[in-house]
Amino acid sequence: MTIYDVIAKKRDGHPLTEEEIRFFVRCSVDGSADDSQLTALLMAIYINGMTDEETAVLTDAMARSGDMLDLSRFGSLSADKHSTGGVGDKTSLIVAPIAASLGVKMAKMSGRGLGHTGGTVDKLEAIPGYRTTVSDDEFLSQVEKVGVALIGQTADLAPADKKLYSLRDHTATVGCIPLIVSSVMSKKLAAGAKNIVLDVKYGSGAFMKTPEQAEALARKMVTIGKACGRNVAAVLTDMDTPLGSHIGNALEVVEAAEVLKNNVSSDLSEVSFVLAAHIVSLTFGMPFDDAMAHVRDTVASGAAFAKMKEWVGAQGGAASYLDDVSRFPAAAASLAVRPPRDGSVSLGAGRTVKDAPIDHAAGIILRKKTGDFVREGDVLCTLYTNQAATLPDAQSRFLSALTFSETAPAPRPLILKTVK
Amino acid sequence: MTIYDVIAKKRDGHPLTEEEIRFFVRCSVDGSADDSQLTALLMAIYINGMTDEETAVLTDAMARSGDMLDLSRFGSLSADKHSTGGVGDKTSLIVAPIAASLGVKMAKMSGRGLGHTGGTVDKLEAIPGYRTTVSDDEFLSQVEKVGVALIGQTADLAPADKKLYSLRDHTATVGCIPLIVSSVMSKKLAAGAKNIVLDVKYGSGAFMKTPEQAEALARKMVTIGKACGRNVAAVLTDMDTPLGSHIGNALEVVEAAEVLKNNVSSDLSEVSFVLAAHIVSLTFGMPFDDAMAHVRDTVASGAAFAKMKEWVGAQGGAASYLDDVSRFPAAAASLAVRPPRDGSVSLGAGRTVKDAPIDHAAGIILRKKTGDFVREGDVLCTLYTNQAATLPDAQSRFLSALTFSETAPAPRPLILKTVK
Repeated sequence: MTIYDVIAKKRDGHPLTEEEIRFFVRCSVDGSADDSQLTALLMAIYINGMTDEETAVLTDAMARSGDMLDLSRFGSLSADKHSTGGVGDKTSLIVAPIAASLGVKMAKMSGRGLGHTGGTVDKLEAIPGYRTTVSDDEFLSQVEKVGVALIGQTADLAPADKKLYSLRDHTATVGCIPLIVSSVMSKKLAAGAKNIVLDVKYGSGAFMKTPEQAEALARKMVTIGKACGRNVAAVLTDMDTPLGSHIGNALEVVEAAEVLKNNVSSDLSEVSFVLAAHIVSLTFGMPFDDAMAHVRDTVASGAAFAKMKEWVGAQGGAASYLDDVSRFPAAAASLAVRPPRDGSVSLGAGRTVKDAPIDHAAGIILRKKTGDFVREGDVLCTLYTNQAATLPDAQSRFLSALTFSETAPAPRPLILKTVK
Repeated sequence: MTIYDVIAKKRDGHPLTEEEIRFFVRCSVDGSADDSQLTALLMAIYINGMTDEETAVLTDAMARSGDMLDLSRFGSLSADKHSTGGVGDKTSLIVAPIAASLGVKMAKMSGRGLGHTGGTVDKLEAIPGYRTTVSDDEFLSQVEKVGVALIGQTADLAPADKKLYSLRDHTATVGCIPLIVSSVMSKKLAAGAKNIVLDVKYGSGAFMKTPEQAEALARKMVTIGKACGRNVAAVLTDMDTPLGSHIGNALEVVEAAEVLKNNVSSDLSEVSFVLAAHIVSLTFGMPFDDAMAHVRDTVASGAAFAKMKEWVGAQGGAASYLDDVSRFPAAAASLAVRPPRDGSVSLGAGRTVKDAPIDHAAGIILRKKTGDFVREGDVLCTLYTNQAATLPDAQSRFLSALTFSETAPAPRPLILKTVK
């Protein structure tokens, strides 16, 4: 078998055999096919598609291309959660301790941030002492004891995905459902959890621009995940505005803690609770509404917040910062951004605020969100930074992303539907 | 403009603008796009196609990506001939002196052999003293004086094609009409001739397997060549068996000389005369039948053979070898291959004899060709080599490429049609 023949076959629109797909994945990690050959096949897949059978084999082969985490000691209690790309996604910080406080085993290895989206690990490093790198043994025994551990990826999970994604990223072959599914699900399969809940985002800030695209992707991910022996559910959520009000590493940890302290009721808490309830529902085979009641109880009782502190403490982090969030170092400079005119706020022309800050204290707190009516004197947001000189530019970028109109934009459902 | 956006546009099936195509070609030579990006676009073009307008722009941009030979001093008399891939194509050795003897200016820069097909320049090096590298000035003044010069390519003609072809060759993106047309015609445009005759081969030994594919390619090449201001004609010829009987560098020079001495009447002479007549017809705006009569006259009178000797001599070659072909060094060993059974010869299962020899004396003389009826005692071919140990393997490869049957294969027309 040659990679040339495999490329030619997909180029001509034929389905590939299991043997051919596994050969392609092997070639992508052992270097026996070069970048241009791998890309030729990726583009042929992009244009000509893959059947569900092909996608399942591709996903499985990519999952097996490197280390596979063995979570079998947790039986059917292990769970994982994944959000498909979005700005300021801090739901993991909330969902993981909620689920753990209800008996689920959350063993999460998380990537670093890609471009403008800070990764979960970056956010956690805002807590003094928090260790994002621990040994596999320590990681698993913490999951066993505490119910949750969240570290930076150390194992070589799905190296085929790493290779192929780096090619797709600059060859316009990212937005293709079989390739997105195999990329996301291969990492989830390699990460070992029995139960997987996916948060599939759609809207101007997401890969999937329309609900229809997002639903098609969600259905495929659920189908492929089940074909590979996992319990999977997917929730379609609106990404036209960032979840919650806080953007920036330390600010997002603060916001997560406030949600778990039951101090905040927002789009962030709503989505987080729904995701947590799906995890509980899948893991214990429980109706969703019952699971949701357990989630609300564990937050209201303070058990979820206690679990967050236990988890952070177990990884060396200063849990006292979560009790008293004023201990997080303040940014040196801030600026309150005000609207240029009265009107209803909405994001204009599909733009989001890119180029997020890189120091932990820096960030944005949104005071108004899409649909809010504002007057000239109001504060839209506060920008925080240790480099005061960047504030005017950040302000004008922020304002240029917004439109102000007489009428409020039509309200959009935050959670569109669930796919199981 | 970014290469990413250009890839995405073609990926989605949209025609590219002139600006986008020229940008792509620029990226391929200045290194501002990497191999995987160029291949992504090539595969998208392969699958989604290009309009004639796009193909013409691509061809022009590739032609202008390096040196452009200036043959304007020859007015409308300059001509060139190109065969699209085939084993043992020695027609240039015959066509060029015929046309030159009739007043056409044949300025040919020729590539080296690709894989199993020896290039025209390799064949000419079998003549002692023949210089394949000369300065541009010397080259052009020889064309002016003698009417023909044939050298190895020195100028940097169409470097974009060199780059893109090297990618296409191993990424299964060769056999796509817009890409073949732009590859062939960009080099022809850069080589400067006003009149271009194309020999488009089809059959098991060629890129284009069927006459229909070959005709589609020929029509596109003629259309694009005319759109770029050249006179173009294409002849569709059968490639299911090699032209003529001699394969190997020195042997092919010998066979060409024998055709020009009017000693041979074969498929080789027939195709060569037709190609030469099309060149004469295009160059002088003369009806094809009149041009064909001139071609036959110039061969019969010895003027064409005299022109061959004048040309070879002008480039330092021992023209005396052409008068007395027995002067070419003989191979140290030879083997007469005989059929295992009686029957009509034909090539089996689309295989041709690959792995041609590399020393000048080595080669094959075919004694029987497709359609001939043979008996066990007959000689099918004679193999020549300076490495006698290779003969048994060469014999079995040769025999394995043939089938012998009770009934002769249906005769196929040698020249299918002309496209102008």
